[in-house]
Amino acid sequence: MKRVRIMKNYKLTLCYDGSRYRGWQKQGNTDNTIQAKTEALLERILGRPAELAGCGRTDAGVHARRQVCSFRADTAMSCGEILEQLRRYLPEDIGALSLEEAPPRFHARLSCREKSYLYRIWNSEAPNVFERKYVYKYPAALDIGAMRRAAEELLGEHDFTAFCSNRHMKKSAVRNLRSISIERRGDELDLLLTGDGFLYNMVRIIAGTLIEAGRGERDAASVAAALESRDRQKAGFTAPAQGLCLWEARY
Amino acid sequence: MKRVRIMKNYKLTLCYDGSRYRGWQKQGNTDNTIQAKTEALLERILGRPAELAGCGRTDAGVHARRQVCSFRADTAMSCGEILEQLRRYLPEDIGALSLEEAPPRFHARLSCREKSYLYRIWNSEAPNVFERKYVYKYPAALDIGAMRRAAEELLGEHDFTAFCSNRHMKKSAVRNLRSISIERRGDELDLLLTGDGFLYNMVRIIAGTLIEAGRGERDAASVAAALESRDRQKAGFTAPAQGLCLWEARY
Repeated sequence: MKRVRIMKNYKLTLCYDGSRYRGWQKQGNTDNTIQAKTEALLERILGRPAELAGCGRTDAGVHARRQVCSFRADTAMSCGEILEQLRRYLPEDIGALSLEEAPPRFHARLSCREKSYLYRIWNSEAPNVFERKYVYKYPAALDIGAMRRAAEELLGEHDFTAFCSNRHMKKSAVRNLRSISIERRGDELDLLLTGDGFLYNMVRIIAGTLIEAGRGERDAASVAAALESRDRQKAGFTAPAQGLCLWEARY
Repeated sequence: MKRVRIMKNYKLTLCYDGSRYRGWQKQGNTDNTIQAKTEALLERILGRPAELAGCGRTDAGVHARRQVCSFRADTAMSCGEILEQLRRYLPEDIGALSLEEAPPRFHARLSCREKSYLYRIWNSEAPNVFERKYVYKYPAALDIGAMRRAAEELLGEHDFTAFCSNRHMKKSAVRNLRSISIERRGDELDLLLTGDGFLYNMVRIIAGTLIEAGRGERDAASVAAALESRDRQKAGFTAPAQGLCLWEARY
C-alpha cells in the first residue's frame, strides 16, 4: 500500500543581523543569503528539500526583527523538535523565533496583510559602538517637523514608481502606505513605515527623501511632485541598507 | 629662551565593543588592546606619545559603556579638535564619547571613587541575534529571589580573595561592594554591581556564583562561607567575558 504523503504547512518566524549576507533571497551565484542558509539547514533536518517563502525580500545588509516565512513539509517531527534543531544549527546571526503549524492556505508573502519596516538614523557625532551595524550614521541636524510634513505627502494609495529602484518593473507599483511615524529617541531618529507592501528599495528611498526634507534640501511640495512624476530621478537618495530592519508582518 | 612645556591633563571617556580585543591593557606581545590602539592614535594626533590610565582594566572580550581615561599632553590643539580626530580614526568598535581638560591631579584610576559593572544574562532559549555579543546566553530557569539572597551576603567591605582569579595577589583584596541589583527585563537578567573597586575577574566570579545560587546549586550560606574561606575553589564559576560591561565610573 502506498503511503499517503500529508504535506503540513508551517509558519516560521526568523530574525537576523543581515550585515554579512547578500540579502534574503536565494541567488544562483551565492549561497550566502538567509533563505539559502535556512533552506539548506531545513533540508538536513527534514531529510528533504523545503522551499521557504518569506514575507519580505530584504536586500543585502538589511536586518529583520521578524521575518515570517512559510514552507511545506512531510515529517513526523514536532514543531518543537524542528525548532530546537534550527536553533542549534543556524549561524549566530540568524535566529529562529518560533515555529508553528499553519492553515493549509497560509503563505507568508501572499497572505500578508500589512508589513512594517523600521529605518534607524543615528543622528549624532557621538559614537554608538554597540548598535553600529543597525543604524545609519547621519550626524547633521534634521528638522523633524519638515520630515513629518514631507511624509504626509506619501501616505495613502499611490503609484510609487518614483520610489523604486527597479526600472523594468512590469507589475503594478501601486501600494498603500498606511503610516510613517518619525520619532526621536535620544540621539536616534526612528522612521517606522507601515503599508500593504513595499517595492524594491522603497523604504530606503523614502528614508533618503525624508532626510533631504529634514535638511531643508526639499520641501513637502517637492516630495509630492516626485511621487506624481513616477520618475526615480526626482526622489531622494537611497539610504544605506544597514539602517533598515523588517520590523513586523501582520496577517 | 627655552620654551616652558605645560602639560595639560585630560579626561577622555571611551566606549567599546570588546569582542575582538585582548582587553584594555597594553601587553608586550600584542597591540590588539584598546589601550594600545588608542595610545597609538593619540601619538599620531599629538605628535608625541601619551600614556592612558583607564579607570578599570577590562579583560579580553569585556565591553565598556564608559571607560574613563586620563592622560597628559602638551599640545596647542583644542579638546574639540582632538576629539574630532579620535572619532575620525578610531576603529568602529571603539568610540570617543567626550574629552575635556581635567584638574592637574585627576587620575582616571586613582581618583575613581566608585565603579559599576553590568553583567547581562540572556535567560532564554529564544535567539537574540542583535545583542548576541553583549550577553551571556544561559537559558535555564533562574530563581531571582535566591540570587538576591545570595547577593546580600557579598555586600559591604570584605576580603574578596575567594572571588579573584589572581592567585599571587600581594596587595589588599579588601573591597567595598556597595550594591548588587538583579533585575529581569523581558528575557534578560541584568546584574549591576557597584563598589569602590573590583579585583581581577571579581564581577565574573560573582556572576557565576549568583547563577549557581539561582539554579539551586548553592544557597546564601554557601556564598557567605565561600567569601569567608578566601579560597577561590569555594566560589562559583567565572561567567564568560562577553556578558560583562564596564558601566560607569564616579569621581
